Amino acid sequence: MTVSDPGKEMHALVERLYPLCRSITGDGVRATLDIVGEYIPLQVHEVPTGTQVLDWTVPQEWNIRDAYIADPAGNRVVDFAASSLHVLGYSVPVAATMPLAELREHLHTLPEHPSWVPYRTSYYKPEWGFCLAQETLDAMPDGEYEVRIDSTLADGHLTYAEHVVPGQVADEVIVSCHVCHPSLANDNMAGVAVAVFLARELAERKPYHTYRFLFAPGTIGAITWLARNAERIDRVKHGVVLACAGDRGSLTYKRSRRGDAEIDRVMQYVLAASGRPHSINEFTPYGYDERQFCSPGFDLGVGSLTRTPYAGYSEYHTSADNPDFVSPEAMADTLAVCREAFAVLDRNRRYVNLSPYGEPQLGRRGLYDALGGRSDTKQAQMAMLWVLSLSDGEHSLLDVAERSGLPFDTVAAAADALGAAELIKA
Amino acid sequence: MTVSDPGKEMHALVERLYPLCRSITGDGVRATLDIVGEYIPLQVHEVPTGTQVLDWTVPQEWNIRDAYIADPAGNRVVDFAASSLHVLGYSVPVAATMPLAELREHLHTLPEHPSWVPYRTSYYKPEWGFCLAQETLDAMPDGEYEVRIDSTLADGHLTYAEHVVPGQVADEVIVSCHVCHPSLANDNMAGVAVAVFLARELAERKPYHTYRFLFAPGTIGAITWLARNAERIDRVKHGVVLACAGDRGSLTYKRSRRGDAEIDRVMQYVLAASGRPHSINEFTPYGYDERQFCSPGFDLGVGSLTRTPYAGYSEYHTSADNPDFVSPEAMADTLAVCREAFAVLDRNRRYVNLSPYGEPQLGRRGLYDALGGRSDTKQAQMAMLWVLSLSDGEHSLLDVAERSGLPFDTVAAAADALGAAELIKA
Amino acid sequence: MTVSDPGKEMHALVERLYPLCRSITGDGVRATLDIVGEYIPLQVHEVPTGTQVLDWTVPQEWNIRDAYIADPAGNRVVDFAASSLHVLGYSVPVAATMPLAELREHLHTLPEHPSWVPYRTSYYKPEWGFCLAQETLDAMPDGEYEVRIDSTLADGHLTYAEHVVPGQVADEVIVSCHVCHPSLANDNMAGVAVAVFLARELAERKPYHTYRFLFAPGTIGAITWLARNAERIDRVKHGVVLACAGDRGSLTYKRSRRGDAEIDRVMQYVLAASGRPHSINEFTPYGYDERQFCSPGFDLGVGSLTRTPYAGYSEYHTSADNPDFVSPEAMADTLAVCREAFAVLDRNRRYVNLSPYGEPQLGRRGLYDALGGRSDTKQAQMAMLWVLSLSDGEHSLLDVAERSGLPFDTVAAAADALGAAELIKA
Repeated sequence: MTVSDPGKEMHALVERLYPLCRSITGDGVRATLDIVGEYIPLQVHEVPTGTQVLDWTVPQEWNIRDAYIADPAGNRVVDFAASSLHVLGYSVPVAATMPLAELREHLHTLPEHPSWVPYRTSYYKPEWGFCLAQETLDAMPDGEYEVRIDSTLADGHLTYAEHVVPGQVADEVIVSCHVCHPSLANDNMAGVAVAVFLARELAERKPYHTYRFLFAPGTIGAITWLARNAERIDRVKHGVVLACAGDRGSLTYKRSRRGDAEIDRVMQYVLAASGRPHSINEFTPYGYDERQFCSPGFDLGVGSLTRTPYAGYSEYHTSADNPDFVSPEAMADTLAVCREAFAVLDRNRRYVNLSPYGEPQLGRRGLYDALGGRSDTKQAQMAMLWVLSLSDGEHSLLDVAERSGLPFDTVAAAADALGAAELIKA
Repeated sequence: MTVSDPGKEMHALVERLYPLCRSITGDGVRATLDIVGEYIPLQVHEVPTGTQVLDWTVPQEWNIRDAYIADPAGNRVVDFAASSLHVLGYSVPVAATMPLAELREHLHTLPEHPSWVPYRTSYYKPEWGFCLAQETLDAMPDGEYEVRIDSTLADGHLTYAEHVVPGQVADEVIVSCHVCHPSLANDNMAGVAVAVFLARELAERKPYHTYRFLFAPGTIGAITWLARNAERIDRVKHGVVLACAGDRGSLTYKRSRRGDAEIDRVMQYVLAASGRPHSINEFTPYGYDERQFCSPGFDLGVGSLTRTPYAGYSEYHTSADNPDFVSPEAMADTLAVCREAFAVLDRNRRYVNLSPYGEPQLGRRGLYDALGGRSDTKQAQMAMLWVLSLSDGEHSLLDVAERSGLPFDTVAAAADALGAAELIKA
Repeated sequence: MTVSDPGKEMHALVERLYPLCRSITGDGVRATLDIVGEYIPLQVHEVPTGTQVLDWTVPQEWNIRDAYIADPAGNRVVDFAASSLHVLGYSVPVAATMPLAELREHLHTLPEHPSWVPYRTSYYKPEWGFCLAQETLDAMPDGEYEVRIDSTLADGHLTYAEHVVPGQVADEVIVSCHVCHPSLANDNMAGVAVAVFLARELAERKPYHTYRFLFAPGTIGAITWLARNAERIDRVKHGVVLACAGDRGSLTYKRSRRGDAEIDRVMQYVLAASGRPHSINEFTPYGYDERQFCSPGFDLGVGSLTRTPYAGYSEYHTSADNPDFVSPEAMADTLAVCREAFAVLDRNRRYVNLSPYGEPQLGRRGLYDALGGRSDTKQAQMAMLWVLSLSDGEHSLLDVAERSGLPFDTVAAAADALGAAELIKA
C-alpha cells in the first residue's frame, strides 16, 4: 500500500528535471516542459526569434550537444556530459587548441569554494567559456588544451508554458516560476515542483480565483508573456513568484512593489498566524520575475515566496545547489503555505451589513445563544459581531481577522453564516 | 454643618437602588427611575410590547412578586426576597414539586466561587431557573422540592428615561447607562449614580454642548431609543457609555468604532494629562451599548468609560458585586474624569487666524511682554503663538495642546484672549 | 603660500563684526552690511519709519553715540565704549544724576553668572537701562550716580539687505539670518559669516535653484521683507534660517511648520547620512525668523539650522557669547552641511520612467554588465533599477535613496545615466 507524500513526489520530480541543460531558449526548456506536462496539462508557446517584446527582442535560440576541455594528454578534464553547469550559458561554438594561459581567460571558478562549479551565462554578449572547480583548474598542467563547444545559436524560438486552473471568477492569480536555469535544484526546479503540485491541489477544490501557472525563462520569458497578454493584465489581481522553494531555511516573503497589495497582506497573515519562523522582506527591483510584474507600468500585486531568499546562501548558483540541497519536507512546507494563503485569498471578500442600524437580533435567527451571560469567549459569536461591525464595504474578512485577533477561518465561517441569514452580502 | 461629598452621596444612591429587581422591562426599572427622578427630572418613556424597533421587537413585560425553593422539610433554601439575583431573569412562572435531580437542570451556580450567587437571564427563550451559591446546593439533601416562581410575562411596556441638560448649541453629547441589571452594584448602579451627579454638575455650568442622559435597559433599550430618535441622530456628535463606574480598579476608556473620534482623543488626553493610571482599549463589538451606537449604520463617536472593564473582575455578574464592592472615592474619581473630559470637549474648537501673514504684533495689543529677551518659558505667551500658528481651520485646540505640550486650559485661555483681540475666530 | 581655510576666514569675519552696536534699526546694521558687502555684493533696502508692514509698523530709527554710568567718584563703572551690550537696546536718551537705589530699577544683571553682562532690549516700550555684571553692581557704593545715554530715536529707516545667487530656475531657496543683535558672536555673526561663505560657494557652482540670502533684523526685518515681496512668495520653495552657527555643540535642524517639507526631508537625510551627531527638532512657533516664514498664511517650507539651538546654552544672550565662544571648525562644519543639503536639494527631482512596462534592456544600451550572474552588489546598477522602479512621477530621488538605502549621489548619477539614455525624464 502506498501513501501519497507530496514532499517525496516533488523531490523525485526535482531529481528528474535536475540534469537537463536549460537556458532561456532551446531544447532543455522543452524537455523540462515535457516532463512537467506529464503531471499537469500545459499550453506550450513558441515565440520566434526576433519578435519584439516590450523593450526587448526574442534572441536566437541556443542549443548544445557536447562540450569539453581535453588536457595535453587528451583526457577530458572538464566535460559537459558530467554537468550542464560546465559550459557558460549561451556560449558560442568553439573548436580550438590553445595554451592554458590563453584558455584561462575563458574559465570561471569559485576560489572560495574550490570544489564547486559556478553557474555563469552570457546571453546578450557573444562569448564562450567553461565553469569548473578551482581544484580542477589547479590540477591542470601547463600545455596545449583542446577546447570544444558544439553549440548552435540560430533563429528559432523562445519556449514557455501555461497551465490554468479555472476558478469561479475570471480574476486571476499568477504563479510564476523560472525554468531557465540548468542543473540547479533549489533554483529553480524546487519552485517548478511546488508549482506543479499546487496546481494539482487547486484543481481539486475548484478555487474562487482562476489560477494561471507560468513556466517561463527568467526576465525574457516574463517580458514575453507580459507583451503577449496585454489584454489580460487587468484580470491579474494577485500573484506569487515561486523560487528557491526547497532549501532547509525558513520561508521568506518579499512584498510586491505596492507593499500593501492584498497578496502581501495575505502572505504576511498566513505566515504569522501559522507560527512558522519566517521573514517578510520589502520589495526591491532585483530578484526574480516580480521585477517585471512589478515594473511601474504594470505594478501588479505580485510578491515572491522563497525559502532562503535570492543569493542568500553560499550554494546559490553553484554545483552545490543539487538535489541533496533541497528536502522533501521543505518543499512540502512551501506547498502548505501556498495552499493556506490561497485558501485565505479565495475567501477574502468585503461584505456589506444589510442590517447596519444597531445589532441585528441574532438570537431569533438561531445564531446566538439564547441564554444570556458572557459570550465573548465564544469565538463563533464574536466573529459574527465583528463581521457585522466591520462589514461596511471597506473592510475585508482579513481586516476583520487582523483587527479582532480571531482566526481567519472562524471569521470566514461567521461570514458564511451571516450570508446564509441574509444579514450581509458580498 | 454638612459638606457636600459627591462620592458619599453617589454611594448612598447605589445602596438605595441596589435591592430592586430590575430587568429589561417591568416595575423594577420603573422603581429605579422613580428614585433617579428624585435627583434630576426625567422624561420617562413607555414603549408598548410588540413595537418594532430596528431589527428587534419590544418583548413582553416581565414582573415578579415572589420566588423560592423549599426543601423536603419545607424550609425556603433559596428565596427571591433575599436577593433579586436568585431568579433567572425573565423566568416564566412555575409552581411544582420535583426531585432534586430534576430541579438541578434549572439551577445555576458558580463552583469556582462556592459562596457567590451568579446572575443569569433568558430574555428570548422561555425558561425558568434559580441562581444560588454552590454551597447552598451542596447542602441540599435529596428529596422532593417545592419550586415556585410567581412571575408574569404579559403585554406591557419597555421603560426608559431621558434627562437633558440644554447647552449653547443643539449638538448633543449622549451619556448612556444601562438600568436592566438587578442587584449588581458596580454593574450598573454605580454608572447610574455617576451619570446623575454628572448631570447635576453640568446643569450648573451651562455647557456648550447639549447633554442627553439616557437611562435604559441594555441592548433593547438603546435600540429602542435609536429607533425612536432617527431624526435626532445627526445631532449626536459625541457620547460616552458609563458602566462599572465604581470599583477600585483604575479607569479604562474603550474607543469608539471610529477609533479617532473627538471623544476618543479627548478622553485619552484627559486621562493621560491627569497622570492617573488608566488603560485605553480599542473598540470591540462586545460590551455595553456602545455596540449599538457604534453599529456601522450609525457609527457614532461614542466610547465607553469604565473602571475595570467588562468582565474583567471575578465579581462580575455575581452577588459579590454588591455595594461594598464599589467605593465613594472610585465613583468620585470617575465623575471627575467625566467633568474634565466634558470641559475639554466643550471648549475644543477650531479657529481661523485672522492675521495669518507673519505674527501679529501682540505687544501693542497688550498681549505680550514689552521687555524683550526670552519669553518661551512664559506659557501664556507660548500658548498664544501656538494657537496663532495652528489656527488654520484644520487644528483644534486639543491639537494645539497635544502638539505644543501645553495644558489644554492654558491653550483655551490663550484662544479666549486672541478671540477677544479679534485675532482669531471660531 | 596661503591655503584658503573657510573656517578661519569666517571666524575673522565674526571678529570684525562683533564689536558693532547693532539693533533692529540704525547705523550699526548699516556698518554690518557694509562689511558683508566687501565679501558679496548686497542690495541694501532702506524702509522709512512709519511704513505699514503686515500687522506691524516700521519703528523710529535708534542710534547711539555714547552711554555710561559714573560713580560718585566720577569713574565710569559701566561704559558703552567697552561693550555695546551695556545699554538696553532702544534706550531713550537720559542725562541725570540719581541715587543708586533709584538707578537700580534701570539695571539688568545675571546673578547666576556674576561676571557676565546680559543682553536686553525694549523696542516697543520707551525705556532706558543699562546691562552690567552682577560683580560690577555689587561693587557700586551707595551715592549719587551720573547716568547718560546719548541716543536718538527719530524718524529714519529700517535697513536690510539681499544677495541673490541666480540659478537655472526661478524657484528660490531663502537663506535668512538676523543682523539685529549687538556684540553677540554665535547669535548671530556666526550665522552671517556662514551665509556669506555659502553664497560665495554657491555662485561658483551655478546652482539649480536661485538662492536668495537675506540679512535683516529679527522679526520686523523678516516681516518687512515678506510685506514687500508678496508677489515673490510663490517662488520661494524652500528655505533655511541660519542662527547660532558657530558654537561647539552638535547641529540641530528644526523642521518647518509643515514638518515634512522637502527641506525638512533633505536636512534630515543629509545629517543622518553624514553620520554626524545631530538633533532634529519639531517646529515650534518660537525661535528665529522661521516664525514669520512659517506663519500659517505663508506656511513656507523654511526650517532652521543651528548648532546648539535657541536658548540652549547658558552663554546665550550674554557677554559670554563672544568670538571665543565660536570656533572655526564649527562654522566650517555648519557650512559643509548647508553645502551638502543644497547639493541634494538641487538634484532632487521626480522622474517618469519612459519605458515602464517591464524592465528596459539596459544591457544593449551599455548600462548593464553583459556577463550574467549576481549584480545586486553593484550599486550603480541597483541604483538604475531603483530609479526605474520608482520613477512614476510620485517619488523623488530622495525617496529612491531612502527606500533603497543607496547613497543619494549614486542614485542621482543613475538618474543622469538613465536620462541620457532617454529612459526617464524629469
